[in-house]
Amino acid sequence: MSDSNLIDGRAIAAEVHESTGARVAALRERGVVPGLVFIRVGEDPASQVYVGMKERMSAKLGIQSTTHVLAGDAPEAELLALIEKLNADAAVHGILVQAPLPRHIDGARVYSAVAPGKDVDGFHPVNMGKLVLGDPSGFVPCTPAGVHELLVRSGVPVAGAEVVVLGRGNIVGKPLAALLMQKAPHADATVTVCHSRSRDIAAHCRRADILVAAMGVAEFVKADMVKKGAVVIDVGVNRVDDPAAPKGYRLVGDIDFAAIRPVAGRITPNPGGVGPMTIAMLLQNTVRSAEAATAARA
Amino acid sequence: MSDSNLIDGRAIAAEVHESTGARVAALRERGVVPGLVFIRVGEDPASQVYVGMKERMSAKLGIQSTTHVLAGDAPEAELLALIEKLNADAAVHGILVQAPLPRHIDGARVYSAVAPGKDVDGFHPVNMGKLVLGDPSGFVPCTPAGVHELLVRSGVPVAGAEVVVLGRGNIVGKPLAALLMQKAPHADATVTVCHSRSRDIAAHCRRADILVAAMGVAEFVKADMVKKGAVVIDVGVNRVDDPAAPKGYRLVGDIDFAAIRPVAGRITPNPGGVGPMTIAMLLQNTVRSAEAATAARA
Repeated sequence: MSDSNLIDGRAIAAEVHESTGARVAALRERGVVPGLVFIRVGEDPASQVYVGMKERMSAKLGIQSTTHVLAGDAPEAELLALIEKLNADAAVHGILVQAPLPRHIDGARVYSAVAPGKDVDGFHPVNMGKLVLGDPSGFVPCTPAGVHELLVRSGVPVAGAEVVVLGRGNIVGKPLAALLMQKAPHADATVTVCHSRSRDIAAHCRRADILVAAMGVAEFVKADMVKKGAVVIDVGVNRVDDPAAPKGYRLVGDIDFAAIRPVAGRITPNPGGVGPMTIAMLLQNTVRSAEAATAARA
Repeated sequence: MSDSNLIDGRAIAAEVHESTGARVAALRERGVVPGLVFIRVGEDPASQVYVGMKERMSAKLGIQSTTHVLAGDAPEAELLALIEKLNADAAVHGILVQAPLPRHIDGARVYSAVAPGKDVDGFHPVNMGKLVLGDPSGFVPCTPAGVHELLVRSGVPVAGAEVVVLGRGNIVGKPLAALLMQKAPHADATVTVCHSRSRDIAAHCRRADILVAAMGVAEFVKADMVKKGAVVIDVGVNRVDDPAAPKGYRLVGDIDFAAIRPVAGRITPNPGGVGPMTIAMLLQNTVRSAEAATAARA
């Protein structure tokens, strides 16, 4: 098997970053510095890593980022007050509250508190609603947007395709289904959403032209569940105990990559597939927000 | 074929109305009169009929309704100003702008102008977003809510069922898919959405345990597209020329009812299936809005 069936998320993300960087430069020429604020609550190690990656890529593209770290036991009101202040700050174009939040904080309330026009994560109900309604003025959540961009830039035909999405989470499964079923260019797919209560998921998988695994179950999708030539996108990031690994665990996706790769027409590696695209779409959303704010002011 | 496989929408709507009427009575005892405002723009005959039916049922249940009729060439600003005034009126608990709107008016802008808490039609992006996100504080659009209620009150098992929705409109297809795929009691279905760009719709239909036709194509679903014993819900209302009919046309659904009925396990008549449920869910939403406003004031 040659490398040719790999969908290289890093290379495609780099293309998106290049275009985003150019847009940042154009804004800076007009005296506008796109501003992105990260909020972390507590010391979740994965969150630290994710925010660190986003900070570094922001800096590389000329987006000014600021990170607020709240104590793990900070009251919800403190977080909401911070968001309120950032909503009112004209230098802030994007606000990202890094998941997961501690249990004493109501995530739905927090994500709804971010001004929809600064909700570059696309988690606010109004942005989710616009996505479903086909209103392009909202922000599309970054991971579904990244999966879509991967497909489009890889030349995978989406219109009319049979798409099966495994997982119905608010961050990936449901918004991705909404995105791909729209009456729109590079959409128009026939979408089925499967989940933990679905019967005979394997049969659904086997009829998919495009199979997106976002269940959060390590190596759930096996080779015999994939139609020959199908495009397989792996969104999963699962921690699996591995005493031989330096950290005592390793990260695996939702698909049995090695076995599926010879069957699939195209396939994402993991890491190096969807992950880089999520950051790329976040920064693209941020620049779009800054452009919109600048246009409104002009 | 006995009557036993018919899902009687009128009888089930009457059950919902009875419960809604009791809630209205309880509110009235506390001095609160639920208030619902209809807005019609222009003289579309079907709109007049629909609003008339809703007015009469409101009156029957003790909901006070008011209807504003704007001229067909009324500027959009006039409509938006009226909505703004009604948003601010504490006696108004629900605002319904009857579709279709004239072409010079931007429907998305109008539906977004209604205060989400008075959007008893469930068309505001924030309500659509809450539906997708599984946040029960929003209003679910009336026709999908009515289809769901029909299934539940008919004892049709939804959890784990294969549901195929024909049509991806903003009013029925997309919100219904979101509703039935939720991780929730009487939901948890495996949902596929088919539409005009789908390949081999018949094959999708044939694997459905629950088939919902909401494409807006007269008698699109034929008997050979239905699995023996499937539940078939017909949302369509299509005008078909018929010189022999008194008005020169007749209304037909999206399914070939006579041929499908012997195959289906359960089936909705049309009229008398989904239609009455839409009104029932509208008035239920209105009372819920009045209850919420009353609780907030207490």
